[in-house]
Amino acid sequence: MSRLLVQKFGGTSVRDVERVNAVADRVAASVASGDRVVVVVSAMAGETDRLEGLGFDMSPRPPAREMDVLLAAGEQVSIALLAMALMDRGCQARSRLAAQVGIRTDDNHTKARIEAIDVEDLNADIADGVIPVIAGFQGIGPNGDITTFGRGGSDTTAVAVAAALEADECQIYTDVEGVYTADPHIVENARRLDAVTFEEMLELASLGARVLHSRSVEFVGKYGVPLRVLSSFREGSGTLITREDSPMEQPLVSGLAYARDEAKLTVLGVPDVPGVASKILGPIGAASIEVDMIVQNTGADGSTDLTFTVRRADYESAREILVDTQKALGARGIEGDDRIAKVSAVGVGMKSHAGVATRMFDALAAENINIQMISTSEIKISVVVAERYLELAVRAIHDAFALGETPAVEDA
Amino acid sequence: MSRLLVQKFGGTSVRDVERVNAVADRVAASVASGDRVVVVVSAMAGETDRLEGLGFDMSPRPPAREMDVLLAAGEQVSIALLAMALMDRGCQARSRLAAQVGIRTDDNHTKARIEAIDVEDLNADIADGVIPVIAGFQGIGPNGDITTFGRGGSDTTAVAVAAALEADECQIYTDVEGVYTADPHIVENARRLDAVTFEEMLELASLGARVLHSRSVEFVGKYGVPLRVLSSFREGSGTLITREDSPMEQPLVSGLAYARDEAKLTVLGVPDVPGVASKILGPIGAASIEVDMIVQNTGADGSTDLTFTVRRADYESAREILVDTQKALGARGIEGDDRIAKVSAVGVGMKSHAGVATRMFDALAAENINIQMISTSEIKISVVVAERYLELAVRAIHDAFALGETPAVEDA
Repeated sequence: MSRLLVQKFGGTSVRDVERVNAVADRVAASVASGDRVVVVVSAMAGETDRLEGLGFDMSPRPPAREMDVLLAAGEQVSIALLAMALMDRGCQARSRLAAQVGIRTDDNHTKARIEAIDVEDLNADIADGVIPVIAGFQGIGPNGDITTFGRGGSDTTAVAVAAALEADECQIYTDVEGVYTADPHIVENARRLDAVTFEEMLELASLGARVLHSRSVEFVGKYGVPLRVLSSFREGSGTLITREDSPMEQPLVSGLAYARDEAKLTVLGVPDVPGVASKILGPIGAASIEVDMIVQNTGADGSTDLTFTVRRADYESAREILVDTQKALGARGIEGDDRIAKVSAVGVGMKSHAGVATRMFDALAAENINIQMISTSEIKISVVVAERYLELAVRAIHDAFALGETPAVEDA
Repeated sequence: MSRLLVQKFGGTSVRDVERVNAVADRVAASVASGDRVVVVVSAMAGETDRLEGLGFDMSPRPPAREMDVLLAAGEQVSIALLAMALMDRGCQARSRLAAQVGIRTDDNHTKARIEAIDVEDLNADIADGVIPVIAGFQGIGPNGDITTFGRGGSDTTAVAVAAALEADECQIYTDVEGVYTADPHIVENARRLDAVTFEEMLELASLGARVLHSRSVEFVGKYGVPLRVLSSFREGSGTLITREDSPMEQPLVSGLAYARDEAKLTVLGVPDVPGVASKILGPIGAASIEVDMIVQNTGADGSTDLTFTVRRADYESAREILVDTQKALGARGIEGDDRIAKVSAVGVGMKSHAGVATRMFDALAAENINIQMISTSEIKISVVVAERYLELAVRAIHDAFALGETPAVEDA
């Protein structure tokens, strides 16, 4: 039995006519090798930005329903072009808008969630040897209105379609060759991972390794669709993201991620009584400012310092809010630093091993990098450092865990 | 009872954000004055060309189904933008794609015909005070596929929607101020007509006065929707196109039209026997070349010359086809001229008056313009002249019928 593959191509992969032809060649090659293929496509690179810009030029606060109609036009163009290119190669192909597939969502415009996918027509196409070319990023709401999933939403379309069709693999073609142990722009000997677990990928994605939309990674965990990230432009097997812990490769740390545009704020000398944290962070959340790490140190004098991090863009607004909070709580003062960065090590292997944190902290100390904050989860350790040390810190940790070398367990 | 208006805005009327705002102002003004309004919009000027160009860059012969998906994206953008602009003005508005309205067509991709329009949701919107903003030019075929109506098809959408809703008037906003007695670029004192009948408009449209898509004019005749052409950019009452003969204004000639890019071909000395015309024109039609005027003169020697006109772009292909025909029929030769133009006078008034043709021919003779071919219908006289005389001929005929002056009957 031939494999059923869902192949997703992002905006840079269909940037222009030449690239669309390259994508068509790749899909046609898969079909020629005996696989059955369903394709999901994003808008041509730059097109979603152009359309969004038009919307904001038109209206200071464009209504979400109309924004979705506007943005969804981008994918409509790319599916038509790719279907044309496939037909020129002798393949049978048919473009399908979300409404034509039946990608049903809630009515949460600009960030809708998929509720169900009608597979009947898709399965009929596949059985007939027709390649469905599906518009990514968009769905159809309960009233028949167009909805969209937010940036990167085409990945979600691909994984959801793969889950609904029980495909053998969902392949995300992108402009990188897979998931790396660290950003290759920073770490010269960063190594492509053959496989990561979806838990690791979720941490890596949410920590700033912008390879996949996190929601698409959640689907892997939920439905067990094997997901592979690979390059549109170069041959290679990419990185497989699975629900199973890889039997082959289980080092302490699988990869490093970082987030550069961070800022931290500290409220000094607040009375150490219950409810203080929520009094400080409540107004911040109410202003739709996302708080990432939170650390509280209790002092000897019955007062405490509370530090938290926000996106750098939210730093000034958060600081203004804190001025009121400081007065209300009678706190001693406010300190802040908007030049910090977060570096994280992720790996399912660290679950069962002590000493990972120590090795990481030692590596930073050896480079005289001061750790400002620490936060840990089962499979992740994050540290905050001054932004100027970011690259140095990433390289030091990468070396400390020998991530550039193929793990010995792979030989097993 | 307030009037129900369908207002259609073409590509130049929604070319950019500024123009979309102007359109929104106009629609909002109509609503403020108590009218209920349904809007139909074309793609932003240049967008359909850009998308079509992409399609032809992608594929030498883009499949029609996919071309329709591609082109329909243009209107999707403009309806979203206009709906946003209307909502910014405090109007309730909702964009509607053809599939969402239910503009049902046959499956004749790129030149589909409307079969039915579902009015239930539209009427509900209108009753709720919501302005439906409908994507022109596109429909939904029997399989749920997107179809399009060919260039100018948004006019057809507007008139068909107006007919289905039994609207009081369908208003086509465009970049001209109405229908003129002649092209104002050629005739300085060309006059805007207050009204023309749909029969006149059909002749004018098909003869090259590119104000309206002919299919939309046919709808006026078929369903009696009053249709008004008026300017997006200037105030004015435009030109009303009606099923009724105007009681006010019934001059001999209402207006002049011309077609510049014409060519003629003559087959000389063919045997004058039945079936010759179809033997000559059959292969031309089989090659999808449109033949316009046909004239046959019988000579004294039992042979005949047959002359016909085609678009200039088809001249060379038609000539090549005739070479074979000439041999097959034993004709004496082929002559051709690809530098001709057609000038036509149109008016329901000429039905009941002799002497119109004479006045037209005299006017041309007075300017020493040779008439190469003549063709007449109930309400139209067309002549073919050398292309270099086109402007002179139009001005001469315009003067001969005093079209620049307000007709005396208007005082009645």
